[in-house]
Amino acid sequence: MDHRLKKLSIILATIALFCTITFTAAYAADPLPSWNDGKTKSAIVNFVTEVTKVKGPSFVPQAERIATFDNDGTLWLEQPMYVQMAFTLDRVRVLAPLHPEWKEIEPYKSIIAGDLSAVLAGGTKEQFELVMATHAGMTPAEFEEIGKQWLGATEDARFKRRYTQLTYQPMLELLAYLRDNGFKTYMVTGGGIEFVRAFCEKCYGIPPEQIIGSSIKTKFDLPDGKATLLRLPEIDFIADRDGKPEAINRIIGRRPIAAFGNSDGDLQMLQWTDAGPRPHFCLYVHHTDAVREYAYDRTSKIGRLDKGLDEAAKHGWTVVDMKNDWKTIFPPSTK
Amino acid sequence: MDHRLKKLSIILATIALFCTITFTAAYAADPLPSWNDGKTKSAIVNFVTEVTKVKGPSFVPQAERIATFDNDGTLWLEQPMYVQMAFTLDRVRVLAPLHPEWKEIEPYKSIIAGDLSAVLAGGTKEQFELVMATHAGMTPAEFEEIGKQWLGATEDARFKRRYTQLTYQPMLELLAYLRDNGFKTYMVTGGGIEFVRAFCEKCYGIPPEQIIGSSIKTKFDLPDGKATLLRLPEIDFIADRDGKPEAINRIIGRRPIAAFGNSDGDLQMLQWTDAGPRPHFCLYVHHTDAVREYAYDRTSKIGRLDKGLDEAAKHGWTVVDMKNDWKTIFPPSTK
Repeated sequence: MDHRLKKLSIILATIALFCTITFTAAYAADPLPSWNDGKTKSAIVNFVTEVTKVKGPSFVPQAERIATFDNDGTLWLEQPMYVQMAFTLDRVRVLAPLHPEWKEIEPYKSIIAGDLSAVLAGGTKEQFELVMATHAGMTPAEFEEIGKQWLGATEDARFKRRYTQLTYQPMLELLAYLRDNGFKTYMVTGGGIEFVRAFCEKCYGIPPEQIIGSSIKTKFDLPDGKATLLRLPEIDFIADRDGKPEAINRIIGRRPIAAFGNSDGDLQMLQWTDAGPRPHFCLYVHHTDAVREYAYDRTSKIGRLDKGLDEAAKHGWTVVDMKNDWKTIFPPSTK
Repeated sequence: MDHRLKKLSIILATIALFCTITFTAAYAADPLPSWNDGKTKSAIVNFVTEVTKVKGPSFVPQAERIATFDNDGTLWLEQPMYVQMAFTLDRVRVLAPLHPEWKEIEPYKSIIAGDLSAVLAGGTKEQFELVMATHAGMTPAEFEEIGKQWLGATEDARFKRRYTQLTYQPMLELLAYLRDNGFKTYMVTGGGIEFVRAFCEKCYGIPPEQIIGSSIKTKFDLPDGKATLLRLPEIDFIADRDGKPEAINRIIGRRPIAAFGNSDGDLQMLQWTDAGPRPHFCLYVHHTDAVREYAYDRTSKIGRLDKGLDEAAKHGWTVVDMKNDWKTIFPPSTK
């Protein structure tokens, strides 16, 4: 009896699978509707088609289909300043009453007075110090909640939208398309990992355990016998430039077969992917649309794409021309 | 037509699912055949049953079902020395001809002469220095290959088996049982991450991207224009004690609901799990079987379980009595 029941269930499951496949193949809609037809879209579709073709010469087993995405400028906007920097500056203003000494110390003094020019012109080191002064002293869960609250309450000045509504619709489609084809999608961002966790799964469908980012140290403690982690004002790791392939190797332990970035900070991740033994795909988002978003590359202070453009041309990587390749930039507004 | 086809496939899939569920429920074999019946086995099965019961009071959504496992002494044997230490000592002997200076320097001199007592009696710091001297200077892929070769060629002196055959059969069943119930199983080991990657997926079904371990630094470089990572003789992170919850928080970003260890080095991981807001489960493997494996706890140099035993009693964690709870220790030999 049990044997016949098992056999029946296998037969029925096979029939159901066959019907589903037939239906899907015959009636599937374009998976990338916000991408204009052309060589960029074709390059993406051809790559995915080839690596998923069982018994094809470029087939890659599902477990090896790792795709890594930068965030700022690749999945959401990064101008006129990184979203996390806008958050950081707001945190300085919120925390100012607890730090009366800040009134006399730069860059806090200027930020509190509403003058952001000095801090935005400053170097990465100064900016990291600000991040640490404002992102430490609480548990990871408390920090994530602060990030969520801020993202829910803050709008970009130009687009009058929350930042979580300023993701790139074509890239959201690309993420889903890759996952539908058995890829595991990872974020690899220079941004702070716990700030990114406040929105990453909801915005991109990327779960917390598939986010690699910069981090500050935490300290394990047992106040009142209950285990906690406290965020310390001390840099742990910066997942930018060389740090991207280093972290990918340490944390994922597989080399990506597809990598997506938009700046010279992503170059090493693309080079690492490009040097892999399997078929692979490297793509740069080139910001060419000053009307619908921003246009910037070789000389931009934020998201500079200079050496990366030359390397892309040299190695035949795909470069998205945002203005011509993307039908829409942002998702439909949910306001 | 398409609509009817879709409807048909849904109906057939539902029937197949129903048959499969009926079959599974009625005829499923014991998922933990190497565990003796008793309170340990019941505690495991009850926990898994409760957190997977949809609409039950202890239900935990699948995405949150994270289980973390220590390796040495929890999933495979760790006596009379950590397997990675045996590997390290062999590496010293293999590399000795390239390092004539070692003949005059301790602990290399003694190791080369076959006297391991000093190094095994030494502290963690000395042992890490040995690891770094022997594990650096190559790419991660080259190192993993060296590890694989060694594991394939080396036998444990007492059991006359390769180390990959000295995993614990009851724990292999537990890993599979958890995964069958929607858990994502992670390894969180103080061992070197790339040594563990040489066997982890094959032995335990845990893929590289679900391994957290200790690491040495790597350096990104572009010799001849081709991206490479080179392993440096420099500690990056030690995933032991406080380092376990810290790394879990940074890399997984979710708190485990089940944690498995065997020593005081795993205590903080269990405490972190135990302090979580969801239903959770903490388990210690207690080595009580000197005949079939080893018996050690409070005073052992390797895998000491002292404070952990007290904490387990205090918090009601499950403690495996290896001698009485496990029908078999190791998997059937494949020799």
